[in-house]
Amino acid sequence: MRHSGRAFRSGREMTKKIPKFKTRVTELFGIEYPIIQGGMSWVADHHLVVPVSEAGGLGVLGAGSMSPSQLHGEVAAVRAGTSKPFGVNVPLTRSDAPKLIRVCMDLEVKIVFTSAGNPAVFTPELKEKGITVVHVVSNVRQAVRAERAGVDAVVAEGFEAGGHIGREEIGTITLVPQVVDAVSIPVIAAGGIADARGFVAALALGAEGVQVGTRFAATVEANCSIYYKNAIVRAEDAATVVVTRSLLPTRVIRNALAEELLRAEQRGAQEPQLREILGEGRARMAIVDGELAEGLIEAGQSAGLVKSLRTVELVFQDFLEGYVKVLNRLQGLVERRSAR
Amino acid sequence: MRHSGRAFRSGREMTKKIPKFKTRVTELFGIEYPIIQGGMSWVADHHLVVPVSEAGGLGVLGAGSMSPSQLHGEVAAVRAGTSKPFGVNVPLTRSDAPKLIRVCMDLEVKIVFTSAGNPAVFTPELKEKGITVVHVVSNVRQAVRAERAGVDAVVAEGFEAGGHIGREEIGTITLVPQVVDAVSIPVIAAGGIADARGFVAALALGAEGVQVGTRFAATVEANCSIYYKNAIVRAEDAATVVVTRSLLPTRVIRNALAEELLRAEQRGAQEPQLREILGEGRARMAIVDGELAEGLIEAGQSAGLVKSLRTVELVFQDFLEGYVKVLNRLQGLVERRSAR
Repeated sequence: MRHSGRAFRSGREMTKKIPKFKTRVTELFGIEYPIIQGGMSWVADHHLVVPVSEAGGLGVLGAGSMSPSQLHGEVAAVRAGTSKPFGVNVPLTRSDAPKLIRVCMDLEVKIVFTSAGNPAVFTPELKEKGITVVHVVSNVRQAVRAERAGVDAVVAEGFEAGGHIGREEIGTITLVPQVVDAVSIPVIAAGGIADARGFVAALALGAEGVQVGTRFAATVEANCSIYYKNAIVRAEDAATVVVTRSLLPTRVIRNALAEELLRAEQRGAQEPQLREILGEGRARMAIVDGELAEGLIEAGQSAGLVKSLRTVELVFQDFLEGYVKVLNRLQGLVERRSAR
Repeated sequence: MRHSGRAFRSGREMTKKIPKFKTRVTELFGIEYPIIQGGMSWVADHHLVVPVSEAGGLGVLGAGSMSPSQLHGEVAAVRAGTSKPFGVNVPLTRSDAPKLIRVCMDLEVKIVFTSAGNPAVFTPELKEKGITVVHVVSNVRQAVRAERAGVDAVVAEGFEAGGHIGREEIGTITLVPQVVDAVSIPVIAAGGIADARGFVAALALGAEGVQVGTRFAATVEANCSIYYKNAIVRAEDAATVVVTRSLLPTRVIRNALAEELLRAEQRGAQEPQLREILGEGRARMAIVDGELAEGLIEAGQSAGLVKSLRTVELVFQDFLEGYVKVLNRLQGLVERRSAR
């Protein structure tokens, strides 16, 4: 594997600045750093998962764009590339979700992320098999429900995230602390995190780990179209919009298709008309085929923070060295009034 | 003044835990803590501004709901209550903004916050009079324009904020670092900050101060309806919605009026119909008169984090003691790999 965490093992000077983390999330997954790569459909296959896990984070396969047999092959490919922990993300709204879950159990995948849908359906069976289960939530009610269903952790994903987002549109900065207050299991923050500043901010809000999507999509290793990656790199602060709010709110980079959807919604278009404009396979078109006008360019608001393609190991280095720098800066803003 | 920063002057035990801050924002305003109270229309009069400034933050009068002569009286009332720095917020979209600006200059107000509108119009004249000028922005382009116009600092206000928000709907966690990267003047973060966790998160993102609205509206001292304050305290994570997106996006707590506006927008209603539903004086109705069904209950997403009415001094105590606690927690998550 070309980029497998080399900097952390060989580079002595770098290693000195890399802190060692211990949170309930690093303990739960058995990983070195509380950085989870989002299981993005069409993006997160073994090409991305292996280097992330090798770097000390948690790589997560995005089963949302895989058939059960493709998932089978991807799990095998990850295992051929790394012996470190990894996960699989299964969107429960997929009609063949039971089959994808079955593949995870058959192959003894140790960590499963479920998103959308009801966590009570598969969690008991997964837990019985000794699998660690994490559910993605976008509001407090869902988090409480997931905890009751027996999951081991939740991802609290804010409005800033790419692709499908929660209807309530709660920003990461208010969502994370409220979820932390509402549940006792560990919380992983997601939505808008693309550098060390967001990483520290998320942990300050009470999270014990972060899930990062868009930043990892724009890596050298990610197996998606270079046109899609470049669209993320070029994106500025206001580049993304939420389309199909009344159907399934989805954050994408603004393009001709997104404009058409927004105009239709503003005219009061209902579900059938929106579905007609949307057609089929639009995310794949943008992400895999690089059709940037015709496709849905799913990406988070953090695209504005992504200014260059990087290797996975450089992304880790930025987050980890940056953590220490940001902490030192925060410390430097205050002086204690009394000696301790 | 009943609550004027008493805890910080008399309470020895408390004082010990309160850190002393130094950022470009505390220096710019001549204040002790980088906590600015948002100049909320109908909420921010001298009853709130005096205790905030006395506690060591920056109280800001909300001129958006005042006539020039009312503003005159409010500035006098603030000066009767405190000799500490305070500011005035003037929304530049108000037709009589020039008159409000004139009052600020005539009374030699030292700090003026301008919001909406073009910062190039009044900034040169205000700066000539030696007034510190801060402009509120909701995207990077506006921030760059404000810096070019000569303002001393910007407030970067995220989508989570209450009342009028930016059309681009950029969340605080992605907006703040991008504005910090784009300008060299100090940045004050706003939108979604109601406790020490959000305070630390905002500073981690690169801000040198925070502007807090909703949390200060739900204080004992704020001179607004107890029904409005209680609506904030009762609000949960998903309580707020953005209405009149096509007109002037405004975040409010969901009620009968908000539902009606949302339904109309979903049907494709255009400006005249929305204006008819909206009518006149709806924010005042909710905030001053406590008409919670008929009024527009302007509030930020951070309402979900506000669980009780507090005095201004308790809000400061929570933020400041909490800062040290959160920093210690962040430090505790890592250990340096090598001795330094």
